[in-house]
Amino acid sequence: MTLAELAARLEGELVGDGDLVVQGLAGVDAAGPGDVTFAETPRLLAAAEQSQALAVIAESGAVSAGKPLIRVPRPRLAFARALELFAPHWPAQAGLHPTALIGDGVELGEGVSIGAYAIIGDRVVIGPGAAIHPLVWIGAEVKVGPRTVIHPGARLHPRIEIGADCIIHSGAVIGADGFGFVPDETGRARKIPQIGTVIIADDVEVGANTTIDRATTGATVVGRGTKIDNLVHIAHNVQIGEGCLIVAQVGISGSVQVGDGVVFAGQVGVIDHVTIGTGARLLARAAIFGDVPAGATVSGTPAHLHTEQMRIEAAHRRLPEILRALRRLERRLAKLEETE
Amino acid sequence: MTLAELAARLEGELVGDGDLVVQGLAGVDAAGPGDVTFAETPRLLAAAEQSQALAVIAESGAVSAGKPLIRVPRPRLAFARALELFAPHWPAQAGLHPTALIGDGVELGEGVSIGAYAIIGDRVVIGPGAAIHPLVWIGAEVKVGPRTVIHPGARLHPRIEIGADCIIHSGAVIGADGFGFVPDETGRARKIPQIGTVIIADDVEVGANTTIDRATTGATVVGRGTKIDNLVHIAHNVQIGEGCLIVAQVGISGSVQVGDGVVFAGQVGVIDHVTIGTGARLLARAAIFGDVPAGATVSGTPAHLHTEQMRIEAAHRRLPEILRALRRLERRLAKLEETE
Amino acid sequence: MTLAELAARLEGELVGDGDLVVQGLAGVDAAGPGDVTFAETPRLLAAAEQSQALAVIAESGAVSAGKPLIRVPRPRLAFARALELFAPHWPAQAGLHPTALIGDGVELGEGVSIGAYAIIGDRVVIGPGAAIHPLVWIGAEVKVGPRTVIHPGARLHPRIEIGADCIIHSGAVIGADGFGFVPDETGRARKIPQIGTVIIADDVEVGANTTIDRATTGATVVGRGTKIDNLVHIAHNVQIGEGCLIVAQVGISGSVQVGDGVVFAGQVGVIDHVTIGTGARLLARAAIFGDVPAGATVSGTPAHLHTEQMRIEAAHRRLPEILRALRRLERRLAKLEETE
Repeated sequence: MTLAELAARLEGELVGDGDLVVQGLAGVDAAGPGDVTFAETPRLLAAAEQSQALAVIAESGAVSAGKPLIRVPRPRLAFARALELFAPHWPAQAGLHPTALIGDGVELGEGVSIGAYAIIGDRVVIGPGAAIHPLVWIGAEVKVGPRTVIHPGARLHPRIEIGADCIIHSGAVIGADGFGFVPDETGRARKIPQIGTVIIADDVEVGANTTIDRATTGATVVGRGTKIDNLVHIAHNVQIGEGCLIVAQVGISGSVQVGDGVVFAGQVGVIDHVTIGTGARLLARAAIFGDVPAGATVSGTPAHLHTEQMRIEAAHRRLPEILRALRRLERRLAKLEETE
Repeated sequence: MTLAELAARLEGELVGDGDLVVQGLAGVDAAGPGDVTFAETPRLLAAAEQSQALAVIAESGAVSAGKPLIRVPRPRLAFARALELFAPHWPAQAGLHPTALIGDGVELGEGVSIGAYAIIGDRVVIGPGAAIHPLVWIGAEVKVGPRTVIHPGARLHPRIEIGADCIIHSGAVIGADGFGFVPDETGRARKIPQIGTVIIADDVEVGANTTIDRATTGATVVGRGTKIDNLVHIAHNVQIGEGCLIVAQVGISGSVQVGDGVVFAGQVGVIDHVTIGTGARLLARAAIFGDVPAGATVSGTPAHLHTEQMRIEAAHRRLPEILRALRRLERRLAKLEETE
Repeated sequence: MTLAELAARLEGELVGDGDLVVQGLAGVDAAGPGDVTFAETPRLLAAAEQSQALAVIAESGAVSAGKPLIRVPRPRLAFARALELFAPHWPAQAGLHPTALIGDGVELGEGVSIGAYAIIGDRVVIGPGAAIHPLVWIGAEVKVGPRTVIHPGARLHPRIEIGADCIIHSGAVIGADGFGFVPDETGRARKIPQIGTVIIADDVEVGANTTIDRATTGATVVGRGTKIDNLVHIAHNVQIGEGCLIVAQVGISGSVQVGDGVVFAGQVGVIDHVTIGTGARLLARAAIFGDVPAGATVSGTPAHLHTEQMRIEAAHRRLPEILRALRRLERRLAKLEETE
């Protein structure tokens, strides 16, 4: 692809030689002589100009010190689109692999592909264009929406629903039993059957080896456009809104309610039955032991408002100094008292 | 099923119209007009009476404001039993699937089911009524007890033992190598072979994508009736007692000794070689850097007794105020000193 | 094997009856009458002498109180070597299992074994002596080095590279998409295609259910001799040096740079884009929010130098006392002020 063609595909404004051939795309640190990179600010553009890159996707109005530019309103978004053009395509399978096992009463939409040694349970419904990779297990009566991709070794337990345009990564387990027990008359833990389901809306991504448990009754729900990273745990009966970002190793306990657009940074933990308001931001490693108001940014263990937490943390580091100051004050005070 | 039939099955006392037809079961928040719900206290019963539910499982002696009741000594336990009656049955397989691969010298008890593309190693012994779901891998010489269920994609490494009535969830890995290395003469990490095993007693549940490593020598042990949630890590040579509850994302380091009835809340971490006494409760996110006495409740990073931790945490939040108070005291003291 | 034979294999000095028959190996706590154990210090040797063990691998110059000894310069290393002699061998498969699916243009080195229901993508290259266990999925164009072992159910996504003598444990997912999104014009998260790769050098171990994501562009890299435990998350574009140890449930965010010989204890978290210097030690549960200098030992949330952290933590435990001391000072000061 030439630079002119790339600029056209990105609906950007080309500055420089459009006949140059784009060999690949790379971040500024790794860009080689055939690569196009991107820069969101003048400072980053200056750095990109120093790199080996062939050309730079930069903001509208950016001025080049020498390298060709593709000017766009949102360089990072345009770079993502350029990556789509260069992304290799690794299809699950053309059609149905002969070793794929398809249950009774399964409905497959047009263009569904199902990989080797994948297993599709009875009465499963798979929408058009969906891709089921090898070694996937889909239990009975699951619904998978159009164009959704299920990566190798993911497991969808019976009767759950996955929307359209979702991506379920390798090893994710959706719809295993929630963790529910009740002491019986002898005090032993008796399993509470988990007869509910999981409903995942459209355009959701679920990371590798992440687990989303089915509800005790009713449904565990993940809203439209929510993106979930690897090794996340979402317990039974959790309700997650739309457009949330949930970074790796987050754990969300049972029956938590999460509004729209909430960001969970890595390793955040949320205790059961709390409510996280719309647009809240839970910073890395925050431990949430109570409700979080809409729009709040919280951090710490236990979590406080981040502004408060920063003040606490600043004082926390000074604790040895505080102890020393206290002892000094005591000595000075004792001296004064003596002189009384 | 009619309400009268359900009451009889639960050995409860019916109050109201026994001919009503029970369509399902649900928590009070989600109960529809055909659902039976439950209430453990008068306050929760009042809420349940306001719901759409058809009837309520309530404590003995509870008084209805209008809805039919099934009175029982333990409403939550009775609700768990009711769920068992309504739980859909998703069998692993009727008998042995033709694609299941069974090794040499395997002993299968009566009524064992083995799903598609499951692999059973040589000399494996599987007790009567056990269900091995599709895509499970069981290494050589593993023992699986009667009625135990191994969910899709779980992996049992060679020579480990799983008791009776266990449930091993999807993607769990039991018996992979412990993490053990020793520097060689050149300082490089040399693997210490992990030739021990894992022994899991009866009535244990192991969550999805949880890992339990085999011992270096001897055995990693999980006691009877212990329940383990998703994404938990149990390292080599850990000894866990009976009737413990281990919530999601807990990590237990090598050679830790855990008594009976210990509760690990979510994301707890335990350093290696410590002892957790019987009945201890480790609250969410606690970081255990030393022994925990029997019966103790601990929290925090590092963990302290929870009562102490609450006092520390209360003071911790007041740290900025403490700093200000210190500065005020210093000023006042300086003023006094001047006047001397 | 006799004790004399074992001593010869370990190049150790035998003290005592070389005709004794070694039945197994065990740590001192679990050693039975036929087992050889080890002791690194005189104190541990005294304990080992009290055990049931048949004989003890001890340091050069150690003096026995009765049991036969094998004296070596490094008892723990010698014990690891002895374990190698006694380790059972569970081969992946002799040669290629008839149900293994091998893609087009695959190159298999001499002595490669591939287990049942394993899937090898097109143009994969597997070095001599490598062992691919059952139910493994290897995507197109992956390279696997000589003698590397891939355990059951591990998944290697397309075009990644694994070095020689590596061990990839069950359920590990290497090369799934990094977690990258950019808001589009409407504010919705749009996926940034992850077109980079993962490069794992020689002699690396990757734990069960661990995830290592592919880079956005370029490569996520794990250096030679680095050992990674279970349930670890390594995000896109992370660069890890040689000879690191990464204990269970660690999470390393995107683009983190890690030097050689770094130790991550359990449940450590590292925020994105920071640098961890060579030889740093990150203690259990440390939360890394900034660069860590070479050789530093850090702990805490957020992490500080461990020596500082210990002082802070000592004062932290005394916070309730600090509060009381402050109040006392205030009262005493007020009294003094009154008397002025």
